[in-house]
Amino acid sequence: MTIHSLPLNARIEAAIAAAIQRPGLPPAPPRLASALAYAVAPGGARIRPTLLLAVAQACGDRAPATSDAAAVALEFIHCASLVHDDLPCFDDSDLRRGKPTVHKAYSEPLAVLTGDSLIVLAFDILARLGDSDPATALALMRHLAARTGMPGGICAGQGWESEATVDLRAYHVAKTGALFIAATQMGALAAGHAPEPWEDLGALIGEAFQVADDLRDVLYDAEALGKPVGQDAVHLRPSAVAEMGLQGAIRHLQNILAGAIASIPKCPGEARLAAIVRDYATKMTPVAPVHPVGA
Amino acid sequence: MTIHSLPLNARIEAAIAAAIQRPGLPPAPPRLASALAYAVAPGGARIRPTLLLAVAQACGDRAPATSDAAAVALEFIHCASLVHDDLPCFDDSDLRRGKPTVHKAYSEPLAVLTGDSLIVLAFDILARLGDSDPATALALMRHLAARTGMPGGICAGQGWESEATVDLRAYHVAKTGALFIAATQMGALAAGHAPEPWEDLGALIGEAFQVADDLRDVLYDAEALGKPVGQDAVHLRPSAVAEMGLQGAIRHLQNILAGAIASIPKCPGEARLAAIVRDYATKMTPVAPVHPVGA
Repeated sequence: MTIHSLPLNARIEAAIAAAIQRPGLPPAPPRLASALAYAVAPGGARIRPTLLLAVAQACGDRAPATSDAAAVALEFIHCASLVHDDLPCFDDSDLRRGKPTVHKAYSEPLAVLTGDSLIVLAFDILARLGDSDPATALALMRHLAARTGMPGGICAGQGWESEATVDLRAYHVAKTGALFIAATQMGALAAGHAPEPWEDLGALIGEAFQVADDLRDVLYDAEALGKPVGQDAVHLRPSAVAEMGLQGAIRHLQNILAGAIASIPKCPGEARLAAIVRDYATKMTPVAPVHPVGA
Repeated sequence: MTIHSLPLNARIEAAIAAAIQRPGLPPAPPRLASALAYAVAPGGARIRPTLLLAVAQACGDRAPATSDAAAVALEFIHCASLVHDDLPCFDDSDLRRGKPTVHKAYSEPLAVLTGDSLIVLAFDILARLGDSDPATALALMRHLAARTGMPGGICAGQGWESEATVDLRAYHVAKTGALFIAATQMGALAAGHAPEPWEDLGALIGEAFQVADDLRDVLYDAEALGKPVGQDAVHLRPSAVAEMGLQGAIRHLQNILAGAIASIPKCPGEARLAAIVRDYATKMTPVAPVHPVGA
């Protein structure tokens, strides 16, 4: 059994572990090395790399090592953004995935450096793919960069939160949509398919994820969520629940997910991918409100 | 006259301005866009990209657009490191290049995002080179990543400052040497030459730069330097002046620079490059101590 025939989750964890432990390199500062490993494992649901691999499989997954590298690079960018977003100057969060955030467990300098190092490592992983298929490696990097940095990536999304007047569409697409669009498009690219038809699926799942996150922020308690709740209200962030109420937000979420399934492009594994998204939609939609706050 | 026939400094500034202003992209959060531009211009001496282009020219500069992209990518990584190093959790500096640091002029969140965005942009600039020469683009990215992230890049260099026991050689190579080695090796690569023979020149210039920086930290006042002085003593950082005294450090600097010139590999522009390094050595060596502090 090779790493590529494992279930998606095991395949992702194996690829992440391999990317973090690279023997034969110069001596590393031990605490930063430890903080890096801490920041990426154990992970959360690994939603973005799972979506990336699911799309790659739906497209035939012709180069599994390329798909794995793309999945790890994307997850490292996501982990970097979490580490930096948790910093005192942003969300000032003490908890993430049920354990102390990196700046709490290590220090603020090491948290800044962990995020920086993960961004670099993400691009390094893709650059090291290059010998076998340079054109695909470069395309993956351009897509990842566009969805990570300025003006259209998650950095831009965070940047909108420092503006008095916000372009709401640009904000939502960049803040949450960007890495989901990267997931579907990089999955297609890694399998040798054109990325353009896959933008809608990523954008819609990203939108659904944002609405589901707004709902969780209101419905769950900190223990169930593994991080502080009520943060949207505290930070005056736009929220689907504030805009349309609890039931309205749940209906909106279901509509978006139906649209996502309908948007899946023709591909060999279309039916299976639709089933994965449908399953994910069920898990994502809150059914049993616990400790509703301000709803 | 094309951009590539300009003097090196003008060529670098033109390439940086072009990389920051990319029309036709999604709407960007204006303050983060402004902070990005603020962080990269007006620059300091642009020592790293100048060295990169000088090496590229010594090797024939067969693809000037590639050399320019490499120079801009390297300078953006350097600027990102300055923005993050100036943060309150690191050096807590109010001044950089004679003007307020990014977190002072904008905010701490925008400074974190500016650094992150510059790292991404650096790799994006190289990835977009790929269509014309993918193998060189990927090699440039791998070299830049190795000298930026963990375990051998400037992130690792900063990371050593969070350790109780420091591997001094790894610390110095990563902290200051890394981007100078990137400069000489990426310059050679951009011109189609093998990068390996160029490592010593970069490492020695980096070492000289560190010693010169230690000297400036002791010899100059904040106005002349455009940033706070006496920081090594404040932060208990290793310093050549503390180790070997003022005159010892100056002699050490001159020896390193002589070694750097002797290390220049055989190449078409060897004599001219030696003259450039010699000129730089003269400018770098302090001659008239002003307000010596603790020397």
